[in-house]
Amino acid sequence: MSITTPKGFVASGLASGIKSGGALDLALLATDDGRGVPTAATFTSNLAAAPPVQVSREHLASSGRRSSGVVVNSGNANAATGVEGRADAERMCSLVASGLGVAAEGILVCSTGLIGIPLPMAPIEAGIPALVAARSGSSASAADAAQGILTTDSGPKEVLVEHPTFAVAGMAKGAGMLAPDMATMLAFLTTDAAIEPGPLSDLLRIAVRDSFNSMSVDGCTSTNDTVVLMASGRAGVIDPNVVVDAVSEACDELCRQMMADAEGATRIVQVRVTGAHSDGEAHQAARKVADSLLVKCSINGEDAYWGRVASELGSAGVAFRMERLSIAYGGVTVCARGVAEAHDAAALARHMAGSLVEVHCQLGLGDGNGVVMGVDLGHGYIDENRTTS
Amino acid sequence: MSITTPKGFVASGLASGIKSGGALDLALLATDDGRGVPTAATFTSNLAAAPPVQVSREHLASSGRRSSGVVVNSGNANAATGVEGRADAERMCSLVASGLGVAAEGILVCSTGLIGIPLPMAPIEAGIPALVAARSGSSASAADAAQGILTTDSGPKEVLVEHPTFAVAGMAKGAGMLAPDMATMLAFLTTDAAIEPGPLSDLLRIAVRDSFNSMSVDGCTSTNDTVVLMASGRAGVIDPNVVVDAVSEACDELCRQMMADAEGATRIVQVRVTGAHSDGEAHQAARKVADSLLVKCSINGEDAYWGRVASELGSAGVAFRMERLSIAYGGVTVCARGVAEAHDAAALARHMAGSLVEVHCQLGLGDGNGVVMGVDLGHGYIDENRTTS
Repeated sequence: MSITTPKGFVASGLASGIKSGGALDLALLATDDGRGVPTAATFTSNLAAAPPVQVSREHLASSGRRSSGVVVNSGNANAATGVEGRADAERMCSLVASGLGVAAEGILVCSTGLIGIPLPMAPIEAGIPALVAARSGSSASAADAAQGILTTDSGPKEVLVEHPTFAVAGMAKGAGMLAPDMATMLAFLTTDAAIEPGPLSDLLRIAVRDSFNSMSVDGCTSTNDTVVLMASGRAGVIDPNVVVDAVSEACDELCRQMMADAEGATRIVQVRVTGAHSDGEAHQAARKVADSLLVKCSINGEDAYWGRVASELGSAGVAFRMERLSIAYGGVTVCARGVAEAHDAAALARHMAGSLVEVHCQLGLGDGNGVVMGVDLGHGYIDENRTTS
Repeated sequence: MSITTPKGFVASGLASGIKSGGALDLALLATDDGRGVPTAATFTSNLAAAPPVQVSREHLASSGRRSSGVVVNSGNANAATGVEGRADAERMCSLVASGLGVAAEGILVCSTGLIGIPLPMAPIEAGIPALVAARSGSSASAADAAQGILTTDSGPKEVLVEHPTFAVAGMAKGAGMLAPDMATMLAFLTTDAAIEPGPLSDLLRIAVRDSFNSMSVDGCTSTNDTVVLMASGRAGVIDPNVVVDAVSEACDELCRQMMADAEGATRIVQVRVTGAHSDGEAHQAARKVADSLLVKCSINGEDAYWGRVASELGSAGVAFRMERLSIAYGGVTVCARGVAEAHDAAALARHMAGSLVEVHCQLGLGDGNGVVMGVDLGHGYIDENRTTS
């Protein structure tokens, strides 16, 4: 399982000294011949977007959405760093570009770590030439890259979806909001399917909407969130419908690994809303429930207190009629027509004690559906996030 | 200090048996002669509004915004209880109305406690006649009323604002979202100033906007939140500008007592946003920061990690430009022009260790201002909210 399994990609990772203790903190993903290939990306919607996000957005636009590689550092988010931070992000790109012999516009850049601290450029200046030199298609190099993008993750997150004719691979870090020193999710995907930049963007948008954007650990949108998908074309033209399924499958698996690594959480919560006026309203309502402190605390306590779920739905800003509402946990209906429903308490208790709690809210108003994956709220989350030191 | 200090009001409270252990669970506030007086109220915006909220809204409208009293029960929210809950809320009003010899439309009703459990009507049927009979203008009766509306509050919350010519008094419960068994804030205010229903509504709206609606413990809007203000007129006509100041002062003090009683919290957080495009945007941004799990955890850890504040402002849905942003904690500027600012670390540490943390965000874009009061997030909050038992 490796980001370089799809044909046409190389990777590398190393410890430059941004992080202390010899931890890997630089990663490179590039095409094996330096050629720019169709690349799609989605970036944070945060208006405090970090300089590397701004630079990557601009490079993607000016290159006609074709890039030769992505360079990533961990241990410092290069966010809230002003014009200097921007120059540093540009410098990272040009160092990689000169190593690969391409224009700087062909390189994207991502950073993750603490906000508000200038990027330490000395180790980066020294590290990037070595990073470029170390690039290879080997699984060891890919493993170094997957390690180099991490912050407080307990381990790398990787995925490979193989079809007879092509492959999609990915690596990710996060869901970072759980870690003391950053608040970022990054994901990098490769495929050897041949797809033009336009359709590639469309399919990434769909895959991200149904995976990363349907995941909420704490409702925070970071300054650095980025998903990048590069398509080398080495496997030839593939039906876009087949590719979108493969990319979605890869994104789903990376999400699953992120949620499982939510260190402060004891269980994953799947909130499914059906019967809303629209899919958009269903998703909005599901997110309101998944992000509710009171609901998260209840689930931490294995308490199926559906009154809090009803209260969140009623204040979610979507069409809602109490007398149409049903709520079930793990298939056990606890509320029907807006009031308490007799139920099997033992079956409910068994479900609440499990590692995945399923909350299904049927609004009874239309056919809009949406799912948001969240986590509970326990002491661990607070302990992880109290201080940055 | 008593809700019956303004002339023309009586009160009572008793233990009917809704709560176990003899705790007071019924309260009445009424005019001393049963006459309906101008009454203003603000109710939860939650679409899952509880039956007592629905009934009170209707009674206020059908009575021309004049009421003779408010009856309150604690220990059960009568929320998510359907048509039965509605009949029970109506029954509470008619029991009080017949005791006072007035029409049921002249009575408002509030409930607070667990959601989704039918109201136990036997103790209420027996209790309300005794409650009506016990009403008096004594401070002992008022103290019983202030006790009867509580759930897990550590004690009653009362206020009295006295002017030479008139008075405003109040009692409240909450900020309930901190307590295991409910999610409600209730406040009841009396004045003997003479004001017509229309101006009374206007001034209550202003006072509530700047007090209760600028307070956020966990971002949850309950099914039962209600603020009621009754004006007996016994002190004669008073300049509405003077009355609004007195009512605002009373609301502010009740808020202060609620925040101080936020059991799961270790400190209060005042988030002030200035320089926004509008007051509305400033308030929205301040709420985003005050409700942020990551910011709340930082403050619990006495860590002035302003990067999280910047990230919340950037995703608050308001106009924002990173390079214009300044952030200060307790007057110590830690971020200027969107980047880190050298500062007195010892002064900052002293402020962060205090019981009130002030976060001031200057957006540098306009002259919109807003303040939201919140609390930090510690283990205590989770322990209070894990289970309802």
